[in-house]
Amino acid sequence: MLDRTDDISIATENWLAQFESALATSDENLLGGLFFSIDPDRATPRKVMRAGTSTIEAIFKFETAQGRGSGILRLIPDADDGNILKAWTLLTALEELKGFEEQVGIARPRGQAYSRDFRGPNWLDLRKAAAEYADRDPTVLVIGGGQSGLCIAARLKQLQVDTLIVDREARIGDNWRNRYHALTLHNQVQVNHLPYMLFPPNWPTYIPKDKLANWFEAYVDSMELNFWTGTEFEGGSYDENEERWTVVLRRADGSKRTMHPRHVVMATGVSGIPNLPDIPGLKNFGGTVLHSSQYTDGEEWKGKKALVIGTGNSGHDVAQDLHSSGAQVTLVQRSSTLVVSIEPSAQLVYAPYNEGTLEDNDLIATSMPLPVARKSHQSVTEVSKELDKDLLDGLRRKGFKLDFGEDNTGWQFKYLSRGGGYYFNVGCSDLIANGGIGLVQFSDIEGFVTDGARIKSGETLPADLIVLATGYQRQEELVRKLFGEKVVDRIGPIWGFGEGQELRNMYARTAQPGLWFIAGGLAQCRINSKYLALQIKAVEEGLLPRVARVSKTDAALA
Amino acid sequence: MLDRTDDISIATENWLAQFESALATSDENLLGGLFFSIDPDRATPRKVMRAGTSTIEAIFKFETAQGRGSGILRLIPDADDGNILKAWTLLTALEELKGFEEQVGIARPRGQAYSRDFRGPNWLDLRKAAAEYADRDPTVLVIGGGQSGLCIAARLKQLQVDTLIVDREARIGDNWRNRYHALTLHNQVQVNHLPYMLFPPNWPTYIPKDKLANWFEAYVDSMELNFWTGTEFEGGSYDENEERWTVVLRRADGSKRTMHPRHVVMATGVSGIPNLPDIPGLKNFGGTVLHSSQYTDGEEWKGKKALVIGTGNSGHDVAQDLHSSGAQVTLVQRSSTLVVSIEPSAQLVYAPYNEGTLEDNDLIATSMPLPVARKSHQSVTEVSKELDKDLLDGLRRKGFKLDFGEDNTGWQFKYLSRGGGYYFNVGCSDLIANGGIGLVQFSDIEGFVTDGARIKSGETLPADLIVLATGYQRQEELVRKLFGEKVVDRIGPIWGFGEGQELRNMYARTAQPGLWFIAGGLAQCRINSKYLALQIKAVEEGLLPRVARVSKTDAALA
Repeated sequence: MLDRTDDISIATENWLAQFESALATSDENLLGGLFFSIDPDRATPRKVMRAGTSTIEAIFKFETAQGRGSGILRLIPDADDGNILKAWTLLTALEELKGFEEQVGIARPRGQAYSRDFRGPNWLDLRKAAAEYADRDPTVLVIGGGQSGLCIAARLKQLQVDTLIVDREARIGDNWRNRYHALTLHNQVQVNHLPYMLFPPNWPTYIPKDKLANWFEAYVDSMELNFWTGTEFEGGSYDENEERWTVVLRRADGSKRTMHPRHVVMATGVSGIPNLPDIPGLKNFGGTVLHSSQYTDGEEWKGKKALVIGTGNSGHDVAQDLHSSGAQVTLVQRSSTLVVSIEPSAQLVYAPYNEGTLEDNDLIATSMPLPVARKSHQSVTEVSKELDKDLLDGLRRKGFKLDFGEDNTGWQFKYLSRGGGYYFNVGCSDLIANGGIGLVQFSDIEGFVTDGARIKSGETLPADLIVLATGYQRQEELVRKLFGEKVVDRIGPIWGFGEGQELRNMYARTAQPGLWFIAGGLAQCRINSKYLALQIKAVEEGLLPRVARVSKTDAALA
Repeated sequence: MLDRTDDISIATENWLAQFESALATSDENLLGGLFFSIDPDRATPRKVMRAGTSTIEAIFKFETAQGRGSGILRLIPDADDGNILKAWTLLTALEELKGFEEQVGIARPRGQAYSRDFRGPNWLDLRKAAAEYADRDPTVLVIGGGQSGLCIAARLKQLQVDTLIVDREARIGDNWRNRYHALTLHNQVQVNHLPYMLFPPNWPTYIPKDKLANWFEAYVDSMELNFWTGTEFEGGSYDENEERWTVVLRRADGSKRTMHPRHVVMATGVSGIPNLPDIPGLKNFGGTVLHSSQYTDGEEWKGKKALVIGTGNSGHDVAQDLHSSGAQVTLVQRSSTLVVSIEPSAQLVYAPYNEGTLEDNDLIATSMPLPVARKSHQSVTEVSKELDKDLLDGLRRKGFKLDFGEDNTGWQFKYLSRGGGYYFNVGCSDLIANGGIGLVQFSDIEGFVTDGARIKSGETLPADLIVLATGYQRQEELVRKLFGEKVVDRIGPIWGFGEGQELRNMYARTAQPGLWFIAGGLAQCRINSKYLALQIKAVEEGLLPRVARVSKTDAALA
């Protein structure tokens, strides 16, 4: 579109100016006040490698009639004429809605409502009353108080949308606290910040589960979120005329409360209901059978024999825990699995977070179109294979079936497309490779008998315990249980990629008015909660219809 | 020292180079590797006004054989030759000791001790064990868990000095939580950060007491501080040969624990023991007499009559609380008082904190020599008088005796020299001015009778309640009680200015080996805890003698 210049900033400014003029011929009402410029508060335009391509990357800001946004532009030389720069990728992302800016920094709340009012309620009185919902219902009800629930509630609070989180656990953070004893996060602290309240600089590289759980408690208090613990969401139905839900909550004391929120955000995680596959003959087994979600502690299995069926993260972790407790463990592999060492391999995808600001990095993470992201993950996967060569060879020698994801796109695409099928090695692969933990293929098992599994070779693999590390059902099943068949039919599959560029039904409007989904790791929730909150606010302010009028596929065809 | 140039950075660099050469002729062992340079990570050199003087202000960094430091240089034209720049003020401050750098940012702990060890203790197990002190004593015992105790413990933790905080209150944060219902901090959030863990950007301008108290709890957990609640420090004695203390602690369950810490840090606040002046004839009074520290809630005094003796912050706050509860209140003034409106007047001294980084601002705050600081506060006091003119005139009309501190240096110097004698008006002065709260001078009271105070004019001022808002005894009295007469004699007065530039016995070695003091508001504790922690670490590493060899006065004479 323009002549090449040696000055990167001038090149990008020229491109943005031309882009702006081109757009200016479009809808004036929507674009009124449109203005693109390099954002001086962000990383300056620079030459970087993205997915193997050398590109000029520039962060810009813009304004429309309704909001202010940020974007990322990547320029590369035109294939036909190297003197001309053209856009390779372009992202525009809404940062705030005009008139509903977040109250942060110099715009922070003044606290007039309670400051130094000697007789009125003080801050604590007001907080307690707000969280009680004695005489009102929230606008948004968030189901689940893990990272996804906290992120969306904190964002909505900043947009002054009345929001209540409910969670069945007894204490905030229990969703992490109750996991296995040795758990620390699988990626590094700088990737995992929650919005508005960053982990302190003296925190360890890999956050231990209890430390994170306690931080969740502090977060709820500090962000002034309304949170009901010990509360089960029993389901709800949507009234199309009233444009609101009728939902029932069962509280810790057994009492029930009916509410009419305008929005329900499902923040229960992609994994809700345990998946218990029909394993032929398992009923013959006379020992204990547990799903991995029921497994708590290896102590009681010391000196005993255990089979762990499933080779995802849970299967490996349970096997390692049992082994460390002195049990004799055999892992049963049902299908090929991706294995990647926790460090450095599993950290490679987060390399951008080791420099620059969190704000820039989040925008960069958001700005990768699916084909570019896939290409990028393919190169990372190649590097990981090389780094993990000895480990992978050791596993192969034991007959462990490995894969590297569809088209070698690695673990993150396995996560995004199916939510599992991989293992971050924190020691269990080494135990398999050195024979400390046994391995058999599920296909070699003929059936189950009272005291174990019968192998096709004729011998019996003795067991006192069988753990089914067979994952969880799709989230659709939870939706079916809570909202009924019609809602599931209406919205279709949740998570994974369909025809579009984005995860299906996640972080965006669904075909069911007032029903939203958020899930994923801490970074994913931090990044996407922002756009989800802006959409809910836009719906509430009448700036956005409650339902997307056309599906993404239809839009692409139109 | 050098020719003036238009380039501020070059001017300061030249000055620093010459300063460096001048110093290089001195002790090589001490100064080995000395090197001064403008710090590129800090504010660049700039022209600013300080205490009415236009000056070039530059932040530099330097290194010695033992440590790395920061400094502030202020250059002004020489009075005789305006073409020559000379140093007006110069600060050098130690930032870190070589070999004992803080584990923050990329140097953060890796957490090997607990990460993914499937059988060993996890993070929570290790934290609990560390805080229990079952089989060891701390190196440093901190008495008091308010902001001063938290700041010094967090700093020492970063320097890997084993530290235990003990506090008599039942819950972390109670020192704020238990104060009066309407309390919010008197200065703004950006001034009050604790080290390493800044208040989130969506927090209100003036932090409410309960919100701060809860943050203290989160801080202890997040910073991994060892903290015993419900624990009374009963006193101790120092063993000169063993170079350690023997101290006795009474725990919540009544049990006693003897410990031998090498250092005791008093972090109990300047105000420990209530000051109950001998008021002639008060024993004749038949109603209730309370010290302000015993006063909790105005509710029970509704419709009753109260006298509040003392016109500092406590006196005014109690009077306002009683008035708001429907009591008929008269304030009794014993001596002239400084009154300043909470906003904007009381915030003027914090103006530098409204821009720039916290790190820069803390260094700037530290860099003001006493005479410059006094001059600066005199100008602020003049501005406040103008801003508060109507309020002050209203008080004068009611006979309220005003002052503006010694040499008109304002409230902050009153605080630093005597820890009180002023009131931040949050409404009580208006009530006095409009007659809602009565005012009498203590000198007009002849004596007390069963039902109130007898005024010299002959009438009786009826009262059901008398509150003595008469402040607290000097910290020396607490030291006497806990450590005995000899220690008090040895160290002399605490707080306030003597011959030196710094508060006496605060944040630095005292004449009593292993005894240290920290106190003040949040900012003061944040700033000074850093230097205090570095000194304790230097003592522990043998880099600094346990006692300053000569007093400051002697040093000045030497």
